[in-house]
Amino acid sequence: MLTLTRRERFNAAHKLYREDWTQKQNEEVFGKCANKNWHGHNYELFITVKGEINPITGYVIDLKWLSDILQKKVIEALDHKNLNLDVPFLKGKMCSTEVVAIEIWKIIADDIEGQGAKLHCVKLMETENNFVEYYGPNI
Amino acid sequence: MLTLTRRERFNAAHKLYREDWTQKQNEEVFGKCANKNWHGHNYELFITVKGEINPITGYVIDLKWLSDILQKKVIEALDHKNLNLDVPFLKGKMCSTEVVAIEIWKIIADDIEGQGAKLHCVKLMETENNFVEYYGPNI
Amino acid sequence: MLTLTRRERFNAAHKLYREDWTQKQNEEVFGKCANKNWHGHNYELFITVKGEINPITGYVIDLKWLSDILQKKVIEALDHKNLNLDVPFLKGKMCSTEVVAIEIWKIIADDIEGQGAKLHCVKLMETENNFVEYYGPNI
Amino acid sequence: MLTLTRRERFNAAHKLYREDWTQKQNEEVFGKCANKNWHGHNYELFITVKGEINPITGYVIDLKWLSDILQKKVIEALDHKNLNLDVPFLKGKMCSTEVVAIEIWKIIADDIEGQGAKLHCVKLMETENNFVEYYGPNI
Amino acid sequence: MLTLTRRERFNAAHKLYREDWTQKQNEEVFGKCANKNWHGHNYELFITVKGEINPITGYVIDLKWLSDILQKKVIEALDHKNLNLDVPFLKGKMCSTEVVAIEIWKIIADDIEGQGAKLHCVKLMETENNFVEYYGPNI
Amino acid sequence: MLTLTRRERFNAAHKLYREDWTQKQNEEVFGKCANKNWHGHNYELFITVKGEINPITGYVIDLKWLSDILQKKVIEALDHKNLNLDVPFLKGKMCSTEVVAIEIWKIIADDIEGQGAKLHCVKLMETENNFVEYYGPNI
Repeated sequence: MLTLTRRERFNAAHKLYREDWTQKQNEEVFGKCANKNWHGHNYELFITVKGEINPITGYVIDLKWLSDILQKKVIEALDHKNLNLDVPFLKGKMCSTEVVAIEIWKIIADDIEGQGAKLHCVKLMETENNFVEYYGPNI
Repeated sequence: MLTLTRRERFNAAHKLYREDWTQKQNEEVFGKCANKNWHGHNYELFITVKGEINPITGYVIDLKWLSDILQKKVIEALDHKNLNLDVPFLKGKMCSTEVVAIEIWKIIADDIEGQGAKLHCVKLMETENNFVEYYGPNI
Repeated sequence: MLTLTRRERFNAAHKLYREDWTQKQNEEVFGKCANKNWHGHNYELFITVKGEINPITGYVIDLKWLSDILQKKVIEALDHKNLNLDVPFLKGKMCSTEVVAIEIWKIIADDIEGQGAKLHCVKLMETENNFVEYYGPNI
Repeated sequence: MLTLTRRERFNAAHKLYREDWTQKQNEEVFGKCANKNWHGHNYELFITVKGEINPITGYVIDLKWLSDILQKKVIEALDHKNLNLDVPFLKGKMCSTEVVAIEIWKIIADDIEGQGAKLHCVKLMETENNFVEYYGPNI
Repeated sequence: MLTLTRRERFNAAHKLYREDWTQKQNEEVFGKCANKNWHGHNYELFITVKGEINPITGYVIDLKWLSDILQKKVIEALDHKNLNLDVPFLKGKMCSTEVVAIEIWKIIADDIEGQGAKLHCVKLMETENNFVEYYGPNI
Repeated sequence: MLTLTRRERFNAAHKLYREDWTQKQNEEVFGKCANKNWHGHNYELFITVKGEINPITGYVIDLKWLSDILQKKVIEALDHKNLNLDVPFLKGKMCSTEVVAIEIWKIIADDIEGQGAKLHCVKLMETENNFVEYYGPNI
């Protein structure tokens, strides 16, 4: 197996809260992550793709294509945005690192398959100390 | 000259905007940093102190004291907060990296002088690509 | 599969040696790592947990709980300590990165299982150039 | 399963091009990576080995042996070299990150097996944003 | 004093050699950096600007303007290029890190002054272990 | 002014304590850094040299010479050692980061001057959060 990984970055605001809970309940469960006026992060996103090497190009996938699709479908939607308020594919969802990683998977998996490769992992780092890796719904 | 530096981190939301401008004017000047629903960063803060070495301890300043005062006066005020809305010492100010660095200086310079050392530099990193260094009002 | 990883750090002294060998034998096998007066490292520890997302919170596991248990059971035991002399769960063991990683697994695996998740990997970095990943006794 | 990873680095020139294509064709497919006068990178190489712990030493493999064999067989061949022109084991091959990772695997897998361990992964980083992981021909 | 720093990156090939020396002489002085078929690096460039804060914007300089001018005048000229062969402002010069940093200064200092700020430092990292800082011809 | 910096690393054990104090006194002042069985760090050392560029070579100083002298005089003395017990130039001294940085300056300043350059700064990082910069006895 061979995988290729591309790192992209986005800076966003978010908070962890449930609208069906009081602010007090949210703070009991989510602590300072429930701050009602938001907080934010420099997120680092690592998209890992697996596939066969094209013997003509030596590529698993064209990195420029991969970077372009990530810019267009993920980074433009998330960068300098409020994850809870501004992002169509996160509307009504908890914006935990776990959930954001899963929703990013859904947005890009088909495009990558259309290039003859497979999305292998979405890794999303919220800080240098915390990150999530999602390997898809079938593993 | 000998300096000692302590790194601390905080995660916060902010935006760049002037209340006396329209949203359109703000976006023309501040671009995506003016997103009305905020965005955010993992800020890295480097506090550099200069002074003489205490011959008894080999210290310029007690790092534990420095870390504690930074936690109490800076990190608790900024971490998991909205810089524009939640921070008393930033009220009514532009929350650019430059201004936040200067305001952090004001909050801690006297405490450090009270320990027999001098604040030398406040370095504030907004992302891995952008940072500010402030050397105080007298340099 | 979805995993969540938490990084913690500890600074410790250790050496590689067998008490049943002479200092000369130890140095032949372990080189400078057998220095009789110890040496030390800034260890970085990455604890990776896997599990299902809780639909209420969007969490695999509560990161604050994870960080607290790691502080209490691992970091307090290892930080600013001598791994060979000061740590009950390493007594009489080789303090290679491999062995320390395995012993950390044993200390925390059950607590994590008690939270409805599973410990997936203990990654221990001794330097920026050397690290170990342990995936448990059943893989 | 337990793995041990060693990081090494090399600085090299390369370009992506096919001799059977015109410069224009190469630039259409490989973009700026086809620059006819070469470009270069600080490559980071992570070699991951898996195996049983030797109960005498607490080692999966002797890291000094691993670092020495990597220096002798890989780093001396690639560091401060032109990957396309100077490296016997890359002659006539596309010097994409994918292909270089695979060829490094071939050069070292047997030596590692000779030590009673198994090569698990060759990770090759071309930049902080792009890397490849190769898990061998049988996975 | 307040400074603002922007990081940019470029990947380039180069070698250290004098045309008026034999290859043997070049290798005696420059070692493996004189490899006749070139080698290369991922260079990191940190441009530090100093100035007064604009009270309207809270900026020392518009970072987007700074990044754009660096892209246009520096990165486009150097990225995925051969420093010795492809770069007009390095023609006929030694391409040591020192010299490249000085030549980058010359290319951008006036533009920055045209914005009412001053170029303070050009820092150029060749590897994680080696870097140069140039503070201009008048210091 | 132009400076060149070289990074080197060493892994060492140490503790902070005064022999003329009781263990209790040492722990009151130095906290966990006074652990009687030592602790340790991966130290990062940045040696910054300033000087004129040699017009023949484009060098401020020969980096290979600099790295070799650092290996011979500093790294061999400190790496995989106990700073308090094993290092002749630290005997009887507090092994705080401040003091170690100053003692490293004394060991190498004359050699660098002998090459026609000047030692400008010794930066010593104890952890990712704490470091010292020493600019010499005359500044």
